[in-house]
Amino acid sequence: MKNYIKHDPWCIIEEGFYPEYNEITESLTSLGNGRMGQRGNFEEQFSGKTLLGNYVAGVFYPDKTRVGWWKNGYPRYFAKVLNACNWIGINVDIEGETLDLATCTVSDYSRVLNMKEGILERTFVATFASGKQVRVHAQRFCSIVDDEAGAIRYSVTPLNFDGTITLTPSLDGDISNKDSNYGEKFWDEIHKETAFGEAYLEMRTKDTPFKTELFNVCTGMKIDILVNGESVDFQSKPVKSAKYVACKIELKAKANEEITLYKYAVNLASLNHALEDLLPNAKAYIARISAKGFKQMKAEHAQAWAERWAQNDIIIEGDSDSRTDAAQQGIRFNIFQLEQTYTGEDARLNIGPKGFTGEKYGGSTYWDTEAYCLPFYLATADQKVARNLLVYRHKHLQKAIENAAMLGFNNGAALYPMVTMTGEECHNEWEITFEEIHRNGAIAYAIHDYIRHTGDESYLAEYGLDVLVGIARFWAQRVNWSADKKKYVMLGITGPNEYENNVNNNWYTNYLAAWCLRYTLSAVNSLQAADSGVQPAVLGTLSEEELTKWQHIVDNMYYPYDAERQVFLQQDGFLDKELLTVEDIKEHRPINQKWSWDRILRSCFIKQADVLQGLYFFEEEFDTETIRRNFDFYEPMTVHESSLSPCVHVIQAAKLGYNEKAYEMYLRTSRLDLDDYNNDTEDGLHITSMAGTWMSVVKGFGGMRIKDGKLAFTPFLPEQWKGYSFRIGFRGQVVRVAVRPGEVEVENLSSQALSLAINGTEITVAAQATEVVKG
Amino acid sequence: MKNYIKHDPWCIIEEGFYPEYNEITESLTSLGNGRMGQRGNFEEQFSGKTLLGNYVAGVFYPDKTRVGWWKNGYPRYFAKVLNACNWIGINVDIEGETLDLATCTVSDYSRVLNMKEGILERTFVATFASGKQVRVHAQRFCSIVDDEAGAIRYSVTPLNFDGTITLTPSLDGDISNKDSNYGEKFWDEIHKETAFGEAYLEMRTKDTPFKTELFNVCTGMKIDILVNGESVDFQSKPVKSAKYVACKIELKAKANEEITLYKYAVNLASLNHALEDLLPNAKAYIARISAKGFKQMKAEHAQAWAERWAQNDIIIEGDSDSRTDAAQQGIRFNIFQLEQTYTGEDARLNIGPKGFTGEKYGGSTYWDTEAYCLPFYLATADQKVARNLLVYRHKHLQKAIENAAMLGFNNGAALYPMVTMTGEECHNEWEITFEEIHRNGAIAYAIHDYIRHTGDESYLAEYGLDVLVGIARFWAQRVNWSADKKKYVMLGITGPNEYENNVNNNWYTNYLAAWCLRYTLSAVNSLQAADSGVQPAVLGTLSEEELTKWQHIVDNMYYPYDAERQVFLQQDGFLDKELLTVEDIKEHRPINQKWSWDRILRSCFIKQADVLQGLYFFEEEFDTETIRRNFDFYEPMTVHESSLSPCVHVIQAAKLGYNEKAYEMYLRTSRLDLDDYNNDTEDGLHITSMAGTWMSVVKGFGGMRIKDGKLAFTPFLPEQWKGYSFRIGFRGQVVRVAVRPGEVEVENLSSQALSLAINGTEITVAAQATEVVKG
Repeated sequence: MKNYIKHDPWCIIEEGFYPEYNEITESLTSLGNGRMGQRGNFEEQFSGKTLLGNYVAGVFYPDKTRVGWWKNGYPRYFAKVLNACNWIGINVDIEGETLDLATCTVSDYSRVLNMKEGILERTFVATFASGKQVRVHAQRFCSIVDDEAGAIRYSVTPLNFDGTITLTPSLDGDISNKDSNYGEKFWDEIHKETAFGEAYLEMRTKDTPFKTELFNVCTGMKIDILVNGESVDFQSKPVKSAKYVACKIELKAKANEEITLYKYAVNLASLNHALEDLLPNAKAYIARISAKGFKQMKAEHAQAWAERWAQNDIIIEGDSDSRTDAAQQGIRFNIFQLEQTYTGEDARLNIGPKGFTGEKYGGSTYWDTEAYCLPFYLATADQKVARNLLVYRHKHLQKAIENAAMLGFNNGAALYPMVTMTGEECHNEWEITFEEIHRNGAIAYAIHDYIRHTGDESYLAEYGLDVLVGIARFWAQRVNWSADKKKYVMLGITGPNEYENNVNNNWYTNYLAAWCLRYTLSAVNSLQAADSGVQPAVLGTLSEEELTKWQHIVDNMYYPYDAERQVFLQQDGFLDKELLTVEDIKEHRPINQKWSWDRILRSCFIKQADVLQGLYFFEEEFDTETIRRNFDFYEPMTVHESSLSPCVHVIQAAKLGYNEKAYEMYLRTSRLDLDDYNNDTEDGLHITSMAGTWMSVVKGFGGMRIKDGKLAFTPFLPEQWKGYSFRIGFRGQVVRVAVRPGEVEVENLSSQALSLAINGTEITVAAQATEVVKG
Repeated sequence: MKNYIKHDPWCIIEEGFYPEYNEITESLTSLGNGRMGQRGNFEEQFSGKTLLGNYVAGVFYPDKTRVGWWKNGYPRYFAKVLNACNWIGINVDIEGETLDLATCTVSDYSRVLNMKEGILERTFVATFASGKQVRVHAQRFCSIVDDEAGAIRYSVTPLNFDGTITLTPSLDGDISNKDSNYGEKFWDEIHKETAFGEAYLEMRTKDTPFKTELFNVCTGMKIDILVNGESVDFQSKPVKSAKYVACKIELKAKANEEITLYKYAVNLASLNHALEDLLPNAKAYIARISAKGFKQMKAEHAQAWAERWAQNDIIIEGDSDSRTDAAQQGIRFNIFQLEQTYTGEDARLNIGPKGFTGEKYGGSTYWDTEAYCLPFYLATADQKVARNLLVYRHKHLQKAIENAAMLGFNNGAALYPMVTMTGEECHNEWEITFEEIHRNGAIAYAIHDYIRHTGDESYLAEYGLDVLVGIARFWAQRVNWSADKKKYVMLGITGPNEYENNVNNNWYTNYLAAWCLRYTLSAVNSLQAADSGVQPAVLGTLSEEELTKWQHIVDNMYYPYDAERQVFLQQDGFLDKELLTVEDIKEHRPINQKWSWDRILRSCFIKQADVLQGLYFFEEEFDTETIRRNFDFYEPMTVHESSLSPCVHVIQAAKLGYNEKAYEMYLRTSRLDLDDYNNDTEDGLHITSMAGTWMSVVKGFGGMRIKDGKLAFTPFLPEQWKGYSFRIGFRGQVVRVAVRPGEVEVENLSSQALSLAINGTEITVAAQATEVVKG
């Protein structure tokens, strides 16, 4: 842990310049508004360690796959989140010396991401080789009100000289992805133009052999200059080169005069605008926001953030010490980044693993969305947000059927991809692509989770059943009858624990598959029984024989089990392994960096919850002692080297009364990126696991469940805290739950009474009323 | 099967031009002499389908690996057999029209590889768009006498015109490998020069970050021209461009005058010459062979081939019909290509999977060498040839120890690479690189095989034990104790059947590992007991504890077994599979082209002998009924989609009296490339499996074994044949065995009497005498 980020309840603070950690800080200070986002890069030129990153939601490129040995069934391309035009650039030149924090002497440096208002701010004093000094103060944001726009206020104050300061705000489209498979660039220039203090650059993704959608993005900027807060006349000299356009502005400055440049920028994508409208709409957008002005834009943006926080904040009370600040900062950082990444307004979008904070892994959609993110949006956002996440998969059903067909499945069997942008599979490691198929189950589970939370049964007929049937058909073909075991088995599986590959009878996947069949059968039954409403067409495609086969699988699935320890076995061969615990290999961690893949695969060590993931999903189907035995067996072997691991363990540890373990895991999930636990924050943030952090508090500490269509809480207060509170949206109502020593306060913020259970006792809270439950 | 290659006992004949199969024919008509080789490309320009290929033994390039997701333990580079300077080029231009069989009209075409003499010959008549016609007759060979040289006789006869014929013999070093990972070229030009009718081009492999050896290759040529068999004066105009040098020769020709160009060429590599000597030695070599002249070179070359055939031919007698010709052609083709690939004179070289016939797969050394090729060289070549193959691995021992260390093994454990050029691993698929470790056992087995055949016990002390101990140490660390099974198990294995990956307790690998430990223990014991001779230093590193551990593993290894069927199980999960036979999936074959990898992995279908490979290696340790049960169980599930599969099945089927199956498999292995069974002959020939074909006849039909230090035969005559004969070198003696209906004739070609067993009966054949055994 690097520990250079200050503990603060509302801000991410780098105080003093840490150039060696700059890529980490860039990730941590990323900005986004659901439509676009960017890493916390510097506006001015920087020749030190940096990963320049600007991203536009939904814009991707199908890079040519890179594999050692092609295997039949591999997808044709790997869709990459596309690093796009850099619109923040403002080069600063002082009489032949360029401002570059890698070459200047830097003092009084701070970089602060204010999460309360969604503003990134940087101040520093730079001393050039000549001895000239300037103070810089930069502020910027991606507006969540004007969500195709961002704005920058960048001021330079010469401290010990009078002289010429040259500012060159630019739009730079000559950008490549860091992990481009063959070192190629993916953008063509379509158009560029400059006028006085204004510039536009339209780029288009290169044509591809894969016939995927191409995207145009038109980026625009407009500049204004103030000196000591007063508008001044200035000259703007156009600068153009390949995929680059800028305005060069020379200003005479006196010592201690503050020169401020406002840069208004927009990013319009062809996803949202007709091609011929991109440039005119960009111009109109620029005109509108520049007329509104930085101050007003910022105020509206901050106000919108205040409204979001009022809805979604989790407040931790404790001593106002660094420890409480660390916990508070952790959860807020997670909520903030989730809110920046996905707004749920567009069913074509999803929650990329790195959001707008990096480009690693590629694709935008993993099972993370259904298994980890959905609960957050279910409880904190309008119901349509979670519904859009589900509809997204419904839109991809045909592609999932094609994907399964490519592997040899038929009759409408659907295999959702491991990673995707368009519904087509983009992953090409056979042990993941073909075998980590539990993802299919998570998509079915999300339908269950959505309906359970929202009560929106109509979703099943409208969209849900189509997806469930496709998934059920896949499982029914993917299992096979073992004449030896006289059970259905599932061979060649990678479970959530990616530290085992190509195993047989992964308990989690077997259980999930049988559950999917069971859930689909019950959905079919209830829809067949319904005498009103729309009957989904897919019902007509189901034969009695097919349904009987599904039921036979449900009744005869094989589950590996250790009768001696009374635990479920992660897979058939698990007991042949040398069963060590993480304590035995302390100095070898993280094993994914210190061990060969060979050694990892053969070890008992678990990357993330696997059997325990199943017990988390299907908690109601197991008694507590069963969960405890499995937790006690597996958790000590779990290295939590996936960001998605600790949260599930918080929830189960809390349930089992393992309070220390729950708190340890909470810190690990909530401060994963802030403390760079896995030594990879520089690549971007672990966005999807952030929803897991939220679950840690709400489902873990708060013990939130849905039981019989009602909310239920069994809260637990970590001894490190004095209290905490959160809000939950549930079926049109909102409840605030505050946990304090010996009591739970429940505030019903809605206009109707709400019945819910606290520690197993049902209470009814009147509209707008508060109840306190002791004990 | 394309069936366009004529059946002929001595020649590979393409009669009539098959441009669509040109890449296949190029593979089939490859030439080589152990030092260099090339595909059967055309001398003149050709714009149709072609894979240009020239290779120099031992010259490789470490290409940057291409993997989707890097895994710890992967090797840094992938060594590729390097496609080198093309020295055969002779462009032909007739008054502005270029001779190109893809654009001319072609008639009277034949391409013939004469295996008896090692000569490739081509004749055809080409008609240009203008109506002009020429007859071309081309002959060439890579001399097995002057093994850094080749020669071409290329004659052009204008048939219906008088005019200017321009011949441009060239050396072209601007060559790239077809499968270069990032489209890069790997050669730099060092020097080029031309003089009258003579040219030299020296190239050097590009510098690399991997610090492997760089190679210089100096290619030279000298030209002579005859008209109607008479020397003529001619002008040679130098032509130079990047990495290219040529001589342009314009000749006035009259209709029906034969213009003949002789091209003498040499390829000298820095493996064999000091850098500063390359060019002068090339010039001296050219001077020498051109003075000798084409006719003399060819005569010496043909004579050398006659001597090889006298030693190694296998003669099949039958009706002189096409069926017998096909069988005879098959076995000769295999022997011919083996002889072209490896001479055994240089312990730095090995037997690449494609020899000089293509570049696919890369690397030069696979377990094929030990498991399939060694027996051929043991029985057909001087003892030092097989010994050199073993010493090659001894030279790589340190690299094998480093390779194992990279995966986490220690104490001198050695893991030989899956694919290598230098001893370093070059393969990077985890399921092969880390898991297909039975290769290590094949290397130990080869030591046993060598000593058993040659009686050269001294090899053990001199080199063998070092390698055995490294391998034994690897196995001892690679197994682990299963508390569940109370046995040693081996997890995470890919057996010879690469259609299963990452399985547990692959029977073949478990058995082989235990055998290696057992064999090493017995070697240690016998060397410790020896009171004379050199004591290998490695003995001093072995503790009693280590040896005890090895014995404990030998005594407690787990072997998966099906008690019901009484067969060994390929791996722990095998019985969970749906057990079908190849008959059930006829229309799905070859499954490696028609099925997804996912489907292949989960199926019961076997690529090549796996359990049966073990029963072949350790036949003496199992009774015939055990072998039969396993053969009957596994062979019907075997798709033989590895070139290394059929030969093992011939040997076992013959032993079990399954004569039809043995013959079917023999045709499959011997005509694999000629009939393009696996649809991949265009990439090059399956050189290493050709030794398997030889084994099919000698060990399969001939039933050759070594028993108690003596040769033993239990011959079987396929009903399709009237007889067959082969020669075997054994401990300094040579015996010819001829099998005819009802009798076996044994001719002792050596100067001492020889005792051997025929059908279990020991006979002694006097020196230079022949015995006939009836029955």
